[in-house]
Amino acid sequence: MEVVQVLHMNGGNGETSYAQNSVFQQKVISRSKLIIKEAMTNLYNRKFHEKLVIADFGCSSGPNTLFAVSEIIKIVENICKKMEHESPEYHVFLNDLSSNDFNFIFKSLLPAFEIEMKKHVKGPCFVSGTPGSFYGRLFPSNTLHFAYSSSGIHWLSQVPKAPESNKGNIYMSSSSPPSVLKAYCAQFGKDFSTFLKCRSDEIVGGGRMVLTFMGRRTKDPTSKECCYFWELLAMALNQLVQKGMIDEEKFDSFNIPIYTPSPLEVKYEIEKEGSFSVDTLEIYEQNWNECHIDSGVVKNEGYGVAKLIRAAMEPLIINHFGFANDIIDEIFDRYSKILNYCMAREKIECVYFILSITKKDE
Amino acid sequence: MEVVQVLHMNGGNGETSYAQNSVFQQKVISRSKLIIKEAMTNLYNRKFHEKLVIADFGCSSGPNTLFAVSEIIKIVENICKKMEHESPEYHVFLNDLSSNDFNFIFKSLLPAFEIEMKKHVKGPCFVSGTPGSFYGRLFPSNTLHFAYSSSGIHWLSQVPKAPESNKGNIYMSSSSPPSVLKAYCAQFGKDFSTFLKCRSDEIVGGGRMVLTFMGRRTKDPTSKECCYFWELLAMALNQLVQKGMIDEEKFDSFNIPIYTPSPLEVKYEIEKEGSFSVDTLEIYEQNWNECHIDSGVVKNEGYGVAKLIRAAMEPLIINHFGFANDIIDEIFDRYSKILNYCMAREKIECVYFILSITKKDE
Repeated sequence: MEVVQVLHMNGGNGETSYAQNSVFQQKVISRSKLIIKEAMTNLYNRKFHEKLVIADFGCSSGPNTLFAVSEIIKIVENICKKMEHESPEYHVFLNDLSSNDFNFIFKSLLPAFEIEMKKHVKGPCFVSGTPGSFYGRLFPSNTLHFAYSSSGIHWLSQVPKAPESNKGNIYMSSSSPPSVLKAYCAQFGKDFSTFLKCRSDEIVGGGRMVLTFMGRRTKDPTSKECCYFWELLAMALNQLVQKGMIDEEKFDSFNIPIYTPSPLEVKYEIEKEGSFSVDTLEIYEQNWNECHIDSGVVKNEGYGVAKLIRAAMEPLIINHFGFANDIIDEIFDRYSKILNYCMAREKIECVYFILSITKKDE
Repeated sequence: MEVVQVLHMNGGNGETSYAQNSVFQQKVISRSKLIIKEAMTNLYNRKFHEKLVIADFGCSSGPNTLFAVSEIIKIVENICKKMEHESPEYHVFLNDLSSNDFNFIFKSLLPAFEIEMKKHVKGPCFVSGTPGSFYGRLFPSNTLHFAYSSSGIHWLSQVPKAPESNKGNIYMSSSSPPSVLKAYCAQFGKDFSTFLKCRSDEIVGGGRMVLTFMGRRTKDPTSKECCYFWELLAMALNQLVQKGMIDEEKFDSFNIPIYTPSPLEVKYEIEKEGSFSVDTLEIYEQNWNECHIDSGVVKNEGYGVAKLIRAAMEPLIINHFGFANDIIDEIFDRYSKILNYCMAREKIECVYFILSITKKDE
């Protein structure tokens, strides 16, 4: 499966939409503010850019779409104020797959953003949308000063292809055949180095990139900190296989196109690609038990988290299984109960990386 | 009325859609090819641009959206071949109001464009969409090398405000009060000079702009060559006023936000604004009797032309009158009969301008 053909967050503004279920991603963006500030300060200490070109890769279309960009711009405004410099002209590029709802961004999100920018920003701010996969070139050479991507690059460009079946699992697991783990790791290596190569062409020498994505602390790719969620989702799906509601073969051939790399794997790929130097790689645990509290309609802890996962995974599941809505409801109802049971017994965390890198001079 | 809030071509792909009724605009773009070629040759004779930034202002979302851009790029490819230069990297910006269907462009039009570009173009070609009114700034300073707009800038930013009513008319007419004619002319002057000022900031010194738009040859703003169509549409609306189907006051307060300037008015505004020099102002007559032939489902000449006008005017008419679909059908059915009657008796033309200008060096 080509992920670019299928992947998109749940649309609209309903209870299962991404727009209503992106509190988690917002926390991640907020958490990256300090590192963005450091990167921007270094960028501006080196050279003043009268035109600052910023791109957000994988911007989606929801409350977070312009949240990162507006935080970035406010940071630059503060730096300019401190340096007693005039504000630059901002050119912001919002990138996502062409299936993303750009009309919604342009019609519904931009007006409020423009009002906010007029309040906080002295320089003019121009926004364009750029459709396409970030695993390919999207901008001319030496165009961008600052690139950002939040919760984007843990998505692989395709489901890893392994010679053996990942029977009974939907992600890497201790019961996965070694060839499956190898295929996942190889797909990440290929995708991440492609991403770096493309951005390296697009970013000016000395330009900065800040990325947030899911990862793991340990060497073991099947460790609980990165696989537990998917094991519980596999459990929910498996219950329906047992009840004859899901075809077993279909279940066995379903694998999630995500990879949660270790710090070493990330650094290895950056070094191998060669055009960036690492400034910071911050690793932190995001407690899922906290996330549900902000999300409004919460029946229980598991319910809130299941909704967050559903908003991102539903299009992939529907595409693979061809399910109608009632089965999707049944899956996430079961998932929510399983999560609730586990979350009452232990803290459930996932590991997030905030990576800040600088494009080397030619 | 703020035109930016309402104006958009009829959406979708049905019989009354703009997508199905834009043959006329396509002819205009084709006609401008020679002048684009001249402008591009001059641009490249002066300096080779390794990155060529092109913007299409008012790109709409239909078969013409990428037609102009692909013609422009093919012209540049030929110039580079002749000059034995490598192809540049192209960065194309497609601009239209935020109500334009950018999703349709990105999902349905871009894939075919990318395939065509790969066939004809050596350099890479990157496309972004930029929402907003071209009567305001859309890009950072000194960004664009070539700006293009086809059939866009005859649309005014708002319906001209006059102290007297334009009773019985929907456009400038010999029976319009002088204050109405004056208001139309003043609105054009304001809008066109704003357009020039904004583009002047955005276009690099030596950069080029080619614009096509409706105009008139004579001094008289109520001359038949620019007003006849709207007089016939007013006739159709007036028939329904007589039958009590349209409120007379509503009819009297409806005015079309278009202006068809004379060559003198165009040149006067350019000179007054001061940042561009005129290279060419070609004036030609586009025969409407020819246009219907290409448009597929044609019952008669008037029918074809009425469909073209309906695709552009329907949203404005519905917004002003609040009509349901059956009245719109009735209006354009009558309009089509009136047009057919007149077109059988005389050739109906409208006057088009192709303007090529160069941004002066600072």
